[in-house]
Amino acid sequence: MSRPGQREFFTVKTVSEAVTGFRPSRRTGTESIALNEAFGRIPAEALGAPHALPGFARATVDGFAVRAADTYGASECLPSYLDLAGEVRMGRPPEVEVRPGTTVAIATGAPLPSGADAVLKVEHTQSATPELLEVLKPVTPGEGLVRADEDAAPGDGLAMPGRPLRAQDLGMLAAAGITELPAYARPRVAIVSTGEELVPADAPSLSSGQVRDATAPALAALIREAGGEPEFIGIVPDDRDALTKTLRGLLDPQPSTTLGKGSDPFDVVVVSAGSSVGSRDETAAAIASLGEPGIWCHGLAFRPGKPTLLADCGGVPVIGLPGNPRSALVVFRLIGMPIVRMVGGCTEPPREPRVTAVLARDLPSAAGRLDVVQVRLSGHSAEPLFGSSSLLSILTAADGYVVVPEAATGLAAGGEVEVTLYR
Amino acid sequence: MSRPGQREFFTVKTVSEAVTGFRPSRRTGTESIALNEAFGRIPAEALGAPHALPGFARATVDGFAVRAADTYGASECLPSYLDLAGEVRMGRPPEVEVRPGTTVAIATGAPLPSGADAVLKVEHTQSATPELLEVLKPVTPGEGLVRADEDAAPGDGLAMPGRPLRAQDLGMLAAAGITELPAYARPRVAIVSTGEELVPADAPSLSSGQVRDATAPALAALIREAGGEPEFIGIVPDDRDALTKTLRGLLDPQPSTTLGKGSDPFDVVVVSAGSSVGSRDETAAAIASLGEPGIWCHGLAFRPGKPTLLADCGGVPVIGLPGNPRSALVVFRLIGMPIVRMVGGCTEPPREPRVTAVLARDLPSAAGRLDVVQVRLSGHSAEPLFGSSSLLSILTAADGYVVVPEAATGLAAGGEVEVTLYR
Repeated sequence: MSRPGQREFFTVKTVSEAVTGFRPSRRTGTESIALNEAFGRIPAEALGAPHALPGFARATVDGFAVRAADTYGASECLPSYLDLAGEVRMGRPPEVEVRPGTTVAIATGAPLPSGADAVLKVEHTQSATPELLEVLKPVTPGEGLVRADEDAAPGDGLAMPGRPLRAQDLGMLAAAGITELPAYARPRVAIVSTGEELVPADAPSLSSGQVRDATAPALAALIREAGGEPEFIGIVPDDRDALTKTLRGLLDPQPSTTLGKGSDPFDVVVVSAGSSVGSRDETAAAIASLGEPGIWCHGLAFRPGKPTLLADCGGVPVIGLPGNPRSALVVFRLIGMPIVRMVGGCTEPPREPRVTAVLARDLPSAAGRLDVVQVRLSGHSAEPLFGSSSLLSILTAADGYVVVPEAATGLAAGGEVEVTLYR
Repeated sequence: MSRPGQREFFTVKTVSEAVTGFRPSRRTGTESIALNEAFGRIPAEALGAPHALPGFARATVDGFAVRAADTYGASECLPSYLDLAGEVRMGRPPEVEVRPGTTVAIATGAPLPSGADAVLKVEHTQSATPELLEVLKPVTPGEGLVRADEDAAPGDGLAMPGRPLRAQDLGMLAAAGITELPAYARPRVAIVSTGEELVPADAPSLSSGQVRDATAPALAALIREAGGEPEFIGIVPDDRDALTKTLRGLLDPQPSTTLGKGSDPFDVVVVSAGSSVGSRDETAAAIASLGEPGIWCHGLAFRPGKPTLLADCGGVPVIGLPGNPRSALVVFRLIGMPIVRMVGGCTEPPREPRVTAVLARDLPSAAGRLDVVQVRLSGHSAEPLFGSSSLLSILTAADGYVVVPEAATGLAAGGEVEVTLYR
């Protein structure tokens, strides 16, 4: 049942070694997507402005287009006078020009007529007669307007490859008329569960010894958050041959035949291993048989999450997670989500919300091991939640987590800690 | 064109008054959703555990189920001896019991056999003969296991109404066999754009004075982020009657007839107003005509975002945004997203990521007005980005924003500020 001796040969890495050093080559292909589906997606190339934006000099106040020089010296005591030569209509090319000594009425957003170099605010004017404007304050050239290329000059970068598109980026692309763009396809991530004790979440009743598969639905959510498309393959028996066959099928699916459509290989494979040592051994052996360059690490200096296995199978990352749901989710958040993002072309992941809090209890930890401790926040206090790593309720009760870094031998109560918040 | 005098009668509110005080009654209905579509959704009621979880006492280590009393006093020098009575199989009810002086082999996750009250780690044992186990260390009752109701007792809350479901919440619901749950429907949010200068984002070319509608696609992204379903109604001319007719149709659609299926009213209506005062006046007049209790505020003490209009039309929130895309997006993030979340039943919005930074320049501000200033981060320094509120590029260049609160008359360079980060 247990072979503790065998585990001595395992390659154990630190979490930071895994995050920076485990870099299988797989990247998703690119596809053309519509702008209205592009929120959070990763552009596959830099997108530049095809022309200047807004494209014409534009009033930024309601008022009067003028030659600034015509307003110099004007004041409430000694106004200047300009002939009102017409009005610029919104959304139309201006039909009048501003000659010396004249002005044209203009609304915010309307195009500056030729001859004008500033827009005078309506508040700084007065109507002397319907045809004559009193100017009560001078303006300088460029005041009250934006230049034709002030939002973007032709070729200016509007979106960078690798960074998820934000709401304002979509606005800028729309302004430039870019309504389709090349993006990395969402990584397809296979979730395989193993463990003789597991039954599907929709099992109506359980016999003693059986538990429902809690890990797969939670992993699917984290995969979606990382921009991937989860696909649940099913619960595979704790049997090396059955697991090997399943995994091979995911990495190297059959080509299409006259009988059916072939499927593409997955971009990432996640195996949620059984919780016993025996089950973990079967999973490790199955993954080891998949191909070159193969297993990158057999364990992480990480609590909870030691029995994590990372493998590179022909460029495809294969992640073997601990069997306890709580450990599996903590590991996947720290190690798996960055891998899904990397494969999907995301080089600038969004930041996590964090708060600073005061640790309510001592956190012991071994040097050289990274500990992730779940905490509940109460005001500025972070209360660590202890308990077996098999308890998912510790994760649902938590507001976030504290990382005790590899170099530390623990954190003392009363000290400030940074809590990464669950959203 | 401009009627500044009229604006003196406008009701201007602060941003915090708007966030806490503007509370139209509309809430979306509830619907039954599948667990695998429930990430980020809002449960419509508290969901309790239908039975204890894990449901049986479970080993948390690989080893041997024992009566703890049988191990007291055992040590490496003076081991205790127990008869090995069999093995518990994973996922099956135990077929053997632990009688005094006997033990049963058990793997992590397997159900505790009756008679046992602790699990001894394999590392603290040795095989004397195939039938006899040497115990090298004592255990106390409860060690090496979790109780049948340690993850949840029957009726324990697994999900709270009002809080978006997180990955771990889905795991817990799956463990309890809850694969369908009642959730608030996503709010349907209508986006109406007005402004004579606007053309759709897919317009292939522009004439001088025309700009593409940048606000609508960006708003759609923010609506999705807040859990809503955006629907773009189109660009409506700056004409009070046309706008009134469009808005009435969104709030009170025609019932179904034999000719066509009726549509439901929208849950939130967002009007991205034209940028000129004239256009804003038309929008305000159209919204004012929609019905009781009507306009709640005509303006916000907010830069950029003063010309924001909030109305409650028969319980449905109607939000009139400033015409400048940048102002519109800043207002919608601070005021609109909380409204969409409220209507969709979300009472505990997810936290925004924030960092503390040092302000690189003075930020002037008027007391009584809240300023939102876009900043670019460079190390620990926050560089404010100044420029016309018509420039969307200020928002795309920003990493986040700083809020200068209503009470402050500005923030000094060198001071610490909290930057809310865009994701």
